[in-house]
This record gives sequence, C-alpha cells and structure tokens, in this order.
Amino acid sequence: MNVFVVGVGLIGGSFAKDIRRLRPHTTLFGIDVNEDHLDQALELGLIDKKAGYDRLGEADMVIVTIPVDVMVEQLPKILDLVNDDCLVFDGGSTKSLICKVVENHGKRRNFLAAHPIAGTEFSGPSAAIENLYEGKTNIICEVEKTAFKLQERALELFREMGMRIRYMNPKAHDKHIAYVSHLSHISSFMLGKTVIDKEKNERDIFDMAGSGFESTVRLAKSSPAMWTPIFRHNKENVVETLEEYIQNLQEFMELLKNDDYEGIYKEMNDTNKIREILNGIPLNNKQ
Amino acid sequence: MNVFVVGVGLIGGSFAKDIRRLRPHTTLFGIDVNEDHLDQALELGLIDKKAGYDRLGEADMVIVTIPVDVMVEQLPKILDLVNDDCLVFDGGSTKSLICKVVENHGKRRNFLAAHPIAGTEFSGPSAAIENLYEGKTNIICEVEKTAFKLQERALELFREMGMRIRYMNPKAHDKHIAYVSHLSHISSFMLGKTVIDKEKNERDIFDMAGSGFESTVRLAKSSPAMWTPIFRHNKENVVETLEEYIQNLQEFMELLKNDDYEGIYKEMNDTNKIREILNGIPLNNKQ
Repeated sequence: MNVFVVGVGLIGGSFAKDIRRLRPHTTLFGIDVNEDHLDQALELGLIDKKAGYDRLGEADMVIVTIPVDVMVEQLPKILDLVNDDCLVFDGGSTKSLICKVVENHGKRRNFLAAHPIAGTEFSGPSAAIENLYEGKTNIICEVEKTAFKLQERALELFREMGMRIRYMNPKAHDKHIAYVSHLSHISSFMLGKTVIDKEKNERDIFDMAGSGFESTVRLAKSSPAMWTPIFRHNKENVVETLEEYIQNLQEFMELLKNDDYEGIYKEMNDTNKIREILNGIPLNNKQ
Repeated sequence: MNVFVVGVGLIGGSFAKDIRRLRPHTTLFGIDVNEDHLDQALELGLIDKKAGYDRLGEADMVIVTIPVDVMVEQLPKILDLVNDDCLVFDGGSTKSLICKVVENHGKRRNFLAAHPIAGTEFSGPSAAIENLYEGKTNIICEVEKTAFKLQERALELFREMGMRIRYMNPKAHDKHIAYVSHLSHISSFMLGKTVIDKEKNERDIFDMAGSGFESTVRLAKSSPAMWTPIFRHNKENVVETLEEYIQNLQEFMELLKNDDYEGIYKEMNDTNKIREILNGIPLNNKQ
C-alpha cells in the first residue's frame, strides 16, 4: 500500500510512525513545502521517499496534516489528483471551513474529515511520537459523505492505532473544540505574556515555575504558524469563549475585591468537579 | 532528633518522607486538627507518633505546613511552646503576613520563613511524595532574623533534600508569586468553570480533553480550603495580576475581532520565549 503524508510534522509524522509499525509492507511518501522537514522525515525514517503532487495518483491513502489555512487551499487540489479508490483524510483542528471547501468537489466521497485530539506543544518531524494517538479521541465529521469502503479503510486503521471514534457535525465540533482546546491555548499564551511582561528578571520566573506555572503555561510554547489560522477559521466561536472566560475572571476578581471569600471558595469548589470529569467518572458517583 | 510536622498533608508529609530517608534516627511526630489525616499519616509511615501541642517542648525542629490563615493564628502559639534551641520553619505560599505576625515574638530568632516551590494538585497525607523537593526552589525570607545556627540546621536539610535556595524579602516574594503561581491557579479554575458551564455534556469535555485542556486545567483540581486563604493574604497583588491578565485577554480578543492575524501571530510568537525561560537558557542564546 502507498501512503502519502502531506505535511510531515508532529501530527502527520506520528501517523507515519504508527503506520510503519502496524503495516510494515506500506511505502510511505512524504510531501512538504519545507525541504528541511522532508529531509529530516527521511532521516528519521518517518517516510521512505520524498515526493511531489505529481505522484499522488499512486496513493491508496493520503493523510493531510498541514495548517488549516493551507488545508483549505490544498485539499481540493489533492482530491483532483488522487485516483477513484484513494482515501484522503485530514487532521485539521477546525472542521467547518474544511468540509465547506470540498462539499461540491467531484471526489468528495474520497475524503474523510477527521480531527484526532492529540498532540504536544512541539512541532516538526522530530516531534513525531509513536503511539501518540493511543487512547485518544478521533472526531469524524460528515461520515455519511465518505464512500463506505473508504470509511472502513480509515476506521480500521484508527482502531488499530487505538483511537476512540466520535461522530459530530462540523459546526458542533468547532463549537466544542473552541471551549475545550482553543480557549486553553489562548489562556495559556496570555498567562505567559502577563508573567513575561511583568517579570523583568527571567530567573525569577524560572525559579518559581514549579508552583504550577510550568504546566499551565505549557501550551504557550505552541506554534503560532499553526494556531493563527485555527483562530481565524474558528473566530466566531473563539470570541464567544473568550468573552465568557473574561467574564468569569472579572467576577472572580470582584469577589476578591469585595472580600467575599465564601464566594471564592464556592467558585473553586464547584470547579473541582473537573477531577471527576477528567477521570471519566459519571458525576452521580462523585465523592 | 525529634521533628514535629504540624499539618501532615502533601507539603508536610513530603518533608517527613525525605527526613525519614535522610535522617533515619529521627523520631517524627505529627500534629493535625484532622484526626483522620493523623491516622493516615501514621499508617503510611509518614510519622512515628501522633502528638499535640503539649509535646512541642521536646522538638528540635518543627515544620509548619498548614493553610496560611491557620498559620498566622498558630505560628505564635507554636513559638511560645518550643524550647530555645528549636528550629521552626513554615511552608506557606504567602510570606508578608506570616512574617508580620511573628516580627515582635520573643522567639522570632527560632523561626525561618520558607516557601518551597513544589507541590501537586492533590492534598492530604496520601498525596505526600518522596523527593518532591529535589531540584525545586526554596524561597527564604528575612533570613537575617533567624539565629545563625538554626539557619544552618535548616539549610543543611534543604541542601540534602536537593533544594535550590533563593533569598527574598516577603513583599517581593508575594508580588512575584502572585504572577508565577497564584494567577496560574485562577486562570486554570476559571478555564475549568467556563468549560463546565458551557459543556452540558461532560462526555464531550472528557473526549476532547487531550487537546491541551487537561494540562491547562490541572490546577483547577486544587484544594479550595488551601487556596482561599492564599488569595485573601495576597489580595492586593493577586488583583493586580488579574487586571493585567484580563487586559491581555481583551487585547487578544480585539485583535481577533479586527481580523488582525499578524498581530495575533506576533503575540504568540513573542510569548514563545517562555520555552527558553523554562529551560533556564539565557535569552542571548535563544534560537
């Protein structure tokens, strides 16, 4: 089987690693505008061969893992070039615009819209990790628009990789992900900014980072080149989450200004239920 | 040597574990208003004996690790009861009020004000971890007010535990820690609140938490009983950090509303330097 990975970074490279392990007879082709990344991917053994769009006709599977603004430009072109039996799926963090841009494409049934909810704050081929996707959720949108046998080809791979599958429409995906992912990134970036702006002595930040700052600010290490287009694609939802987040912070600050420590205690105590949610425990079983 | 731990939770219990390993001939006494915690501490081997204030006269070292509001009440009483050669140190997350409340105490020279910058989101004796403090920073305030030989007794232990020592005045400590620790907790609690309020279906939160939310919201699992008094003690600094954080979030939201994606890219790119800061790399060496 010939698998093409378009964009050999953290997400695409991690797919390549798992496919290499699970399907040893696969030939992995890499396509990337960044020639250095392609060379690294080859050196790291993520791919077997560098390729260009001219070879896409040979593909049985194409995995498109590029920034979402480039995705909406390139995805129709990729679909133009693949053969009728080829599966194309993406890993983009937004889904509405991506689904929109291919909705009337002649090869729409070759495409599966996916968002594997996994990653780290690092990027590039050297950030690729084996088993990145194990136990993680893969959100699939508009599954009914993909040819059944190509759905099956994708789902079989996702299952072998250990992913849990959830189906959602693109609009619901983008709304939920704005809360659970995009807002986390902004809160983290702005936390980093606030601390850097204030703490002229970076040694003080470093020395005190063990106090919870390090993990809370981790996402502020993320790639601006990847995240700017995500916020652009999902602008409306992200603005809404930000408004609510700022409102909650203001209310907390007012409680503090008014010395309402019972109120502050209650806010934190109510939010502690995130423990059970993240443990996947139904709330009627909570302590 | 007799070491008394007043408050046998995460912080005090972790001290007990390291002392047990490093000073095997020590007898460890536990004092706690929570009888269950004392029993647990005994069962877990954190302490050798349960005790009360009536035995504090036997102590060579007293470690006071209780919520900061209880600390300001209890610390003078503890100092009243210890002998002239006993070292008392605390682990409180604020320092100004704690130092203030003992400044004129007859046994001020027996006290060392300390803040070991370490912890997890868990609490209680079962949360105690060996080597929690290794490689972590311990901030010591007003060291000159502690008797020299007692400073030495404390520093020898801290060094053996692998802590890095920094000296700071209480006011500077409380200001820095508001940025680097207290703000992180509030940003995390309010992130959790925003997501819980919006996502009626907790399964959606759980399924999407791999997207960065889980680590960013980790601190929202923290104990309200511990954190409410910290925010109360450090109210002025915390309000200031919150105002700046909210301001930064609002500016980011405005950039997004105005479709200023160059501005958004720049904000994130500038904040990426947190990578080097957290790696402890001087900025003139940054990539």
